[in-house]
Amino acid sequence: MNFSSKLLENAVAEFAKLPGVGQKTALRLVLHLLNREEQEVEDFGQAIITLKKEIRHCRNCHNISDTETCEICASPKRDTSLICVVEDARDVMAIENTAQYFGRYHVLGGLISPMDGIGPADLYIESLINRVREQEIKEVILALSPNMEGDTTIFYLYKKLKDFNIPITTIARGVAFGGELEYADEITLGRSIVTRVPYENAMMR
Amino acid sequence: MNFSSKLLENAVAEFAKLPGVGQKTALRLVLHLLNREEQEVEDFGQAIITLKKEIRHCRNCHNISDTETCEICASPKRDTSLICVVEDARDVMAIENTAQYFGRYHVLGGLISPMDGIGPADLYIESLINRVREQEIKEVILALSPNMEGDTTIFYLYKKLKDFNIPITTIARGVAFGGELEYADEITLGRSIVTRVPYENAMMR
Repeated sequence: MNFSSKLLENAVAEFAKLPGVGQKTALRLVLHLLNREEQEVEDFGQAIITLKKEIRHCRNCHNISDTETCEICASPKRDTSLICVVEDARDVMAIENTAQYFGRYHVLGGLISPMDGIGPADLYIESLINRVREQEIKEVILALSPNMEGDTTIFYLYKKLKDFNIPITTIARGVAFGGELEYADEITLGRSIVTRVPYENAMMR
Repeated sequence: MNFSSKLLENAVAEFAKLPGVGQKTALRLVLHLLNREEQEVEDFGQAIITLKKEIRHCRNCHNISDTETCEICASPKRDTSLICVVEDARDVMAIENTAQYFGRYHVLGGLISPMDGIGPADLYIESLINRVREQEIKEVILALSPNMEGDTTIFYLYKKLKDFNIPITTIARGVAFGGELEYADEITLGRSIVTRVPYENAMMR
């Protein structure tokens, strides 16, 4: 594209590095910013720079945090005997939004993926095991994505954790609420029949 | 959404102000930036702040420019007797990308839109008339979007410019190249029949 301005070209190139943002979208976003007040644009740029400079990761659960220990780990209202293991900070937010879980989290920082060269040592697995060993943990919930990397990671974690003799659970998989049976994929539908639950359990809360 | 980090919440809120970017997309983009190197994120933020602070508008054609007079107006290769009137800088880039036009531009900065409270005085129309009066202009091409605001603006500009006794033209409208007749809308197809051109003209270049 012909920008006739190095400043513009530079800003568009930076935006186009974002995932799912092509040249045309980048240009639209940059021209939108150009029409905003200088202070607003300054705030936009600074918010991102400050975020990257000052963000920390909770030293207990590795979740994104403004402080050394995150709000969830520091809260006296959370059940400290429950650990929900997730891939990244986005999953923490997704589960928090359900308002159905009141324990703590453990953010792995990824999933085991030999294809991408990510092994157990690249993830916060050692610190998870230390937490289970040192803190009084009564259950570890493995809330990882139902794909190959997720299943591999669950299998690895299960082997590492099973000797602690505490329940290791995974989140339920099945046909989504509001989902129609005929549109569910065969594997999900098949597994949801095999792992069927008594009606009273399904209706519990 | 529950962010558990003010820094993160702030950055996501800033991204979500961009057109077509919702909370979830904003979060995805911000988490992507968090995974990048600090220097890269700094470059991203600074590129936008610098753009807004240092960008200028060409004093001749009002196009976005790094200098007082834009590259196009300053170029000795351009035909200074042709002015192509466009809505904004994006249209300049779109036409430049065709590599079919070698005159100068005039960026109006918008279209007349009584619904949005934009009148002729809010646009660079006075300076266009001054250019036609003071520079040796042989043709004014009105390349505005084919919608109500575009047609209103074309009509207004035509009235203002017709007494200069130079050709006022508009870009051709019709069925797009590669477009199929049956999928063209009735108005476009209808107008393309009414404004049909001799085969030799259509083949010219």
